[in-house]
Amino acid sequence: MHRTRVRVVEDALDANDTIARANRADFDGAGVRVVNLMSAPGAGKTTLLERVLGDGLDGVRPGVLEGDVQGSFDADRLSALHVPVTQLNTGAGFGGECHLDANMVRSALPALPLGEIDLLVIENVGNLVCPAEFRVGEDVRAMISSVAEGEDKPLKYPLMFRACELVVVNKIDLLPHVDFSVERFLANVRQVNPGAEHMLVSARTGEGVAAFRDWLVGVAQREVAPA
Amino acid sequence: MHRTRVRVVEDALDANDTIARANRADFDGAGVRVVNLMSAPGAGKTTLLERVLGDGLDGVRPGVLEGDVQGSFDADRLSALHVPVTQLNTGAGFGGECHLDANMVRSALPALPLGEIDLLVIENVGNLVCPAEFRVGEDVRAMISSVAEGEDKPLKYPLMFRACELVVVNKIDLLPHVDFSVERFLANVRQVNPGAEHMLVSARTGEGVAAFRDWLVGVAQREVAPA
Repeated sequence: MHRTRVRVVEDALDANDTIARANRADFDGAGVRVVNLMSAPGAGKTTLLERVLGDGLDGVRPGVLEGDVQGSFDADRLSALHVPVTQLNTGAGFGGECHLDANMVRSALPALPLGEIDLLVIENVGNLVCPAEFRVGEDVRAMISSVAEGEDKPLKYPLMFRACELVVVNKIDLLPHVDFSVERFLANVRQVNPGAEHMLVSARTGEGVAAFRDWLVGVAQREVAPA
Repeated sequence: MHRTRVRVVEDALDANDTIARANRADFDGAGVRVVNLMSAPGAGKTTLLERVLGDGLDGVRPGVLEGDVQGSFDADRLSALHVPVTQLNTGAGFGGECHLDANMVRSALPALPLGEIDLLVIENVGNLVCPAEFRVGEDVRAMISSVAEGEDKPLKYPLMFRACELVVVNKIDLLPHVDFSVERFLANVRQVNPGAEHMLVSARTGEGVAAFRDWLVGVAQREVAPA
């Protein structure tokens, strides 16, 4: 039983990578750079996006692909900003509830206004484990970790922290009220991913979010890497 | 491809339920009641257990089975309380990183001191999606939701909230500092699981945790349900 399950997942991950490359080629062809944004539930992905997309992106035209188990709560919030938002519900089925995979994103491609945007932010399902295993055709992966979650998270969920180029530390307005040392957290990040960039923000108060906005603009301006 | 994947997961869930029943029979035979405790990463499972197990359980002898992707950070914290703690690392592989399943718990049975405990708390992997799909042989499922995660979580992760008999609302010491209405959160819980019990606690300050301790004692005193 166990051997069968392992072989199936290896096949599935190979198939996923193939489809992810096809997605990436389509995004490249449309001149759209793509960020895969991940975090635990409630870390503040949507609130941070509301904050930075509402303020504009220096001429970069953003779009959002919202991954959720069900409902369109986040998409509804972002639509209020007059940014094109496409909802993708992962629904029921094999591992399908807990992350986005390349095929789900592929199925959403026809609904994405690729000709009208320069940057697509894919808001993944809130989960610190499974999304890190599935590329979806993104240029870059970023994650948000809230100070309320505790400073041990990089050591407990190393795959996620290792998969990301950027770690956004959110909810720094709560620092006076929680047992969280930024220094120890960043040391833990470095232990699993020495090259990760980081920034400290409060999506709620707006503190530090300019750095994330600038980072998104920088991603949109990246050259397409040669295939 | 998709059909195959769906059939595989149905087979896997059937196999899981069979093993979960075997686990349950072994726990029943040893007179041990079992709680499957779940939450998002950083919601405070370990801190709450530290708080209630450190104070004793009115003569009930507890043990803990710690599920983690890797490491033994939580087990080390709980061992300091002189409560028997068994570590179970989910390691790499097919869905195996993101939740405990019945077979993983079965593999840990020989290491559990079932003759010396009355209540086993299984601390699942921090994840609001996958753990809800896998019974492990527990009598009851409970979850913790932190006020820092936001009041929309029951609507976004309904399967988890529906699977649990008890919802512990943790980190209420942060209520003055976050945008979270307890009333709206509980209305959202009722919308997906009208029968769920709830309690408001701060594992950090100790406020309200007596109710959780009493609930654990009550679980330990439940009669074994007829098979």
